[in-house]
Amino acid sequence: MAEKKSWVLMVTAQTPTNIAVIKYWGKRDESLILPINDSISVTLDPSHLCTTTTVAVSPGFTHDRMWLNGKEISLSGGRYQNCLREIRSRASDVEDEKKGIKIAKKDWENLHLHIASYNNFPTAAGLASSAAGFACLVYSLAKLMNVKEDNSQLSAIARQGSGSACRSLYGGFVKWIMGKDDNGSDSIAVQLVDEKHWDELVILIAVVSSRQKETSSTSGMRETVETSPLVLHRAKEVVPKRVVEMEEAIKSRNFPAFARLTCSDSNQFHAVCLDTSPPIFYMNDTSHRQAIWIISCVEKWNRSEGTPQVAYTFDAGPNAVLIARNRKVAALLLQRLLFHFPPQSDADLNSYIVGDKSVLMDAGIQDLKDVEALPPPPEIKDNVPTQKFKGDVSYFICTRPGRGPVLLTEESQALLNPETGLPK
Amino acid sequence: MAEKKSWVLMVTAQTPTNIAVIKYWGKRDESLILPINDSISVTLDPSHLCTTTTVAVSPGFTHDRMWLNGKEISLSGGRYQNCLREIRSRASDVEDEKKGIKIAKKDWENLHLHIASYNNFPTAAGLASSAAGFACLVYSLAKLMNVKEDNSQLSAIARQGSGSACRSLYGGFVKWIMGKDDNGSDSIAVQLVDEKHWDELVILIAVVSSRQKETSSTSGMRETVETSPLVLHRAKEVVPKRVVEMEEAIKSRNFPAFARLTCSDSNQFHAVCLDTSPPIFYMNDTSHRQAIWIISCVEKWNRSEGTPQVAYTFDAGPNAVLIARNRKVAALLLQRLLFHFPPQSDADLNSYIVGDKSVLMDAGIQDLKDVEALPPPPEIKDNVPTQKFKGDVSYFICTRPGRGPVLLTEESQALLNPETGLPK
Repeated sequence: MAEKKSWVLMVTAQTPTNIAVIKYWGKRDESLILPINDSISVTLDPSHLCTTTTVAVSPGFTHDRMWLNGKEISLSGGRYQNCLREIRSRASDVEDEKKGIKIAKKDWENLHLHIASYNNFPTAAGLASSAAGFACLVYSLAKLMNVKEDNSQLSAIARQGSGSACRSLYGGFVKWIMGKDDNGSDSIAVQLVDEKHWDELVILIAVVSSRQKETSSTSGMRETVETSPLVLHRAKEVVPKRVVEMEEAIKSRNFPAFARLTCSDSNQFHAVCLDTSPPIFYMNDTSHRQAIWIISCVEKWNRSEGTPQVAYTFDAGPNAVLIARNRKVAALLLQRLLFHFPPQSDADLNSYIVGDKSVLMDAGIQDLKDVEALPPPPEIKDNVPTQKFKGDVSYFICTRPGRGPVLLTEESQALLNPETGLPK
Repeated sequence: MAEKKSWVLMVTAQTPTNIAVIKYWGKRDESLILPINDSISVTLDPSHLCTTTTVAVSPGFTHDRMWLNGKEISLSGGRYQNCLREIRSRASDVEDEKKGIKIAKKDWENLHLHIASYNNFPTAAGLASSAAGFACLVYSLAKLMNVKEDNSQLSAIARQGSGSACRSLYGGFVKWIMGKDDNGSDSIAVQLVDEKHWDELVILIAVVSSRQKETSSTSGMRETVETSPLVLHRAKEVVPKRVVEMEEAIKSRNFPAFARLTCSDSNQFHAVCLDTSPPIFYMNDTSHRQAIWIISCVEKWNRSEGTPQVAYTFDAGPNAVLIARNRKVAALLLQRLLFHFPPQSDADLNSYIVGDKSVLMDAGIQDLKDVEALPPPPEIKDNVPTQKFKGDVSYFICTRPGRGPVLLTEESQALLNPETGLPK
């Protein structure tokens, strides 16, 4: 142990969220969080959606504590405990010469941690905040404790916090290999390609304000595995083929194949939810009519162009994630989305479209008047009435495939006070 | 051939509609209409929902003609032609001594037919009018032409008009055996139990006015078979087990098992529709929110009672079919339905609830004031707002399991003029 009694050692990291294009739905082991099939995700640019976490250790800390978005939360849950135990057991000697701090491997068992985490997007919005959160927790602790494992090995720890968290340990496109071992050691994430490989893709997320409490993913997937006669066929026969095809589509940047697989797998995930007893409706609650509408618009547009322009995917919530094949298509897509889902008349366009604003400029939209002047999409037939759903979408996020976890070395970016180890 | 030139020989029959509790979705032969799995249906009481058909033959008729609900329609479609050809090929000698008419077997090839058909419910309402219609066409022609085949053999002909029509050749509960032969001769309907076996069941149908054009069943099931990776697993692995369990549940009047299987199979049918590319949404269009609502209300009520009171099933359209375990439950169900789906303020209750009005009396409802005074269902928790959807349901039909086809011998019930052979 170090001589000084008052020191605080900190690490701050930033970790992206991710969205699955081949879905994870169903566990074969509830406590280790081992899935019944592989899944594939795209990592979202952390400059638009990410978690920042500062972890600190000090001999002055009396117990492990955590603050999420400024509010202290309990660490007693099994998921946090599993991650903390696994990371502590892999800790190594740490020496900070500048600060004169030395921590021996064996000391970590007796030292307490302070953790502060912050999402730059609404936690309850169904944007995989727990994926980014657990990935960031594990990544930052691993750096603080000088854990030697690589990101794939760390992913097996993050997985025990939240299954999809393992996929946030890498940028670009990521595969979560389900693994075979009972102890879960081979249920890990691997990077398929990095974020530069297919950087013309643009991702638009329609965030929907859901007033109703959704079925949680954990209980939802448990009920599906217990009651759906279709889900194991999906896991054993359908997904393995799709994973092979999806890897090939991603590596060769084959957008038509990518879009077909992404849309089909999203629909199949919701199909097995519907095949659950009682059925789980993530996509067709009264407040979620825009999901059906978006699917039908995208299908119509793709058909009219003769080849897919946009892929859609929906997670266990009402938000629509749309992936455009390139920037030009993204601008046309945003025009269509704004035509059907205009903001409220008193809205600020700047907070209605967040993230990469350049898509808005490409779409030629500078203010609400430009939105009102948008013509109906040409693929809508003249005899079909054009529908508008003002207020159905809370806001849109424009983003792209992004990088994996990074350390933030500027002390100003830390969420804990370097003297007290308490939230700033 | 008979001596008189001016005679008209007629037969009038009435045939019920039916609703599948184990669904038919997917053909292995499009032209013979051979399914990929067995299905099971309940026949609905023809006093509430039925087709009446009069078929006539006369040497004075110059070609085959048909009138549906008073309007002449073409018989050139393959489905009509298949039924007419198959029935004609089985015709026998006919003699009507009273009228002095004799038709030899070989004469039928050269005689023309007039057919008039009438549904006592809206044709476009998605209430299996084509099932009742083709069953009635085949049944009445078989009687006119003295066809010796029994109803099971006739069902194989009706099947070629509309798949589910084969199940309308019997009352009670009916199984359509998919069969194995390439020519479809063993793809027939058989009666599991007659309508008296389980006569305490009450069936309530919420008829929804759908403004949007639905995917037709024919093209919908073709697309599902071509694109859904789940539908063959359903057909080969799931349905065969369910059919065995359903037969057992029906024979032993085991309502909990019947309800569980009925609801699960309805949900799985919609799941494979969603697994189709592009996905087919029969149940969750903007105008169909009451489907989701009804499912959630029924699931909540069944859970609160500890054992199923009501089963729900949805066909390829938005109408909800609800099966109550007995009359007492049906009255409670109607109270719940009217609480959530009250009629428009200026509606006539008598045309809002049609069919067996005694359920309305059992529910203690005599006028619109009684509907307005209905308390929220007790299983709704105090802190949950109660939702009402005035106008979402066009009307309710109260009915029960019913009998199979019958001949109507009163000349007043015929739809064709006995002198001219033209619609009355």
